[in-house]
Amino acid sequence: MDLFGHRRPEDVSIDDVAAAAGVSRPLVYRYFPGGKQQLYEAAVQGAAEELTGRFAVPSEGPPTGRLAAALDRYLAYVDEHAPAYGALLGGGGVAETSRTGAIVDGVRRRAGEQVLHHLGVTEPGPRLAMMVRSWIASVEAVSLIWIDEGRSQPVAELRDWLVDHFIGLLLVTATTDPETAEAAARALPQETRDSPAGGLLARLAPLAPAAAHLLGESESPGHGAG
Amino acid sequence: MDLFGHRRPEDVSIDDVAAAAGVSRPLVYRYFPGGKQQLYEAAVQGAAEELTGRFAVPSEGPPTGRLAAALDRYLAYVDEHAPAYGALLGGGGVAETSRTGAIVDGVRRRAGEQVLHHLGVTEPGPRLAMMVRSWIASVEAVSLIWIDEGRSQPVAELRDWLVDHFIGLLLVTATTDPETAEAAARALPQETRDSPAGGLLARLAPLAPAAAHLLGESESPGHGAG
Repeated sequence: MDLFGHRRPEDVSIDDVAAAAGVSRPLVYRYFPGGKQQLYEAAVQGAAEELTGRFAVPSEGPPTGRLAAALDRYLAYVDEHAPAYGALLGGGGVAETSRTGAIVDGVRRRAGEQVLHHLGVTEPGPRLAMMVRSWIASVEAVSLIWIDEGRSQPVAELRDWLVDHFIGLLLVTATTDPETAEAAARALPQETRDSPAGGLLARLAPLAPAAAHLLGESESPGHGAG
Repeated sequence: MDLFGHRRPEDVSIDDVAAAAGVSRPLVYRYFPGGKQQLYEAAVQGAAEELTGRFAVPSEGPPTGRLAAALDRYLAYVDEHAPAYGALLGGGGVAETSRTGAIVDGVRRRAGEQVLHHLGVTEPGPRLAMMVRSWIASVEAVSLIWIDEGRSQPVAELRDWLVDHFIGLLLVTATTDPETAEAAARALPQETRDSPAGGLLARLAPLAPAAAHLLGESESPGHGAG
């Protein structure tokens, strides 16, 4: 997968693969009689299983701490295999066939199932399902930007911000979707002051006065109405 | 673009294009001497300009109201040209060349610039830039899921939820990024009780008691620590 990440799949020869693996060309063909296309799909499948596995973390501790642990593992993969991740998820058409596209969609689906599992949901309604999928799309977009910018932002900051993003999205979605509100209500009592959710809410609280004109009892100030 | 959305570009002939446009085949070739590839790229470019234009709204009224107006226009495009939008942004490799990929990236970049413009930012730092790009990735993912699910969710609900998503993301990002905090501080006084931000904060406020154990003065309850 790293070979395919550094060069377009059509520019990688079976000889390159044999050399990188330290085996003979006939041995590569013995395991991949379908040649380069089969080998490429197997590489994508292997990367997909590895990425999917990163989202599996124990059901212990505050849910937002589990999410941080899963993201730690996921972003470590992105860091270690940046060219492969970029080729696999960055699109550009060179590395994508309908079959590899389906494999990548499978990674997204299983990552979403893991997230929902920690929220205690197995059959999400449309809004909660969409929420989780859109957050995963953000994780991918952010990972690709991070790679593109030379991975200059510290990975721990990226992880914390992606967890904050998830919590923010869960809370705003809970204001209109009853199923998400129930999931949030189940998760919140499991959170602690030193969990990511505790940290975020402690940092959000001081911002409340700036929004006082939108709440409370007084008249609407009507600033900026156009 | 609608023709290319319904069928793979390689399955669309110049005759199909001529028939759909109600013109002769030689006339198509006169305008597109480069043949189908040139025509396809021109179609993608046209769709890109149309989509980009949807994000341009007047700088009047509460910023979250402007964002809702821009999304209204954007989602109307998605609704009217669902197959084309799906072909353009859904990937799958069939419709993508490096040139069309660059055009699509241009749409994302200009959409991001529009959003930043309404936040009063022209040269965003890395975190704010990443925030806007990740939200735009979510808008695309959500639009594609919406198309995929037969556009069964009302478009107004989708729009409101995407605006809530943006506000939530802006607020959580403001807790760690000073530039985003300044942008939020500039935007908040322009918001009103009947703006999207006003509505969201009024719905969020009742959720605060459920998070009381994460704030306040008492000991951490330590629920669920693992």
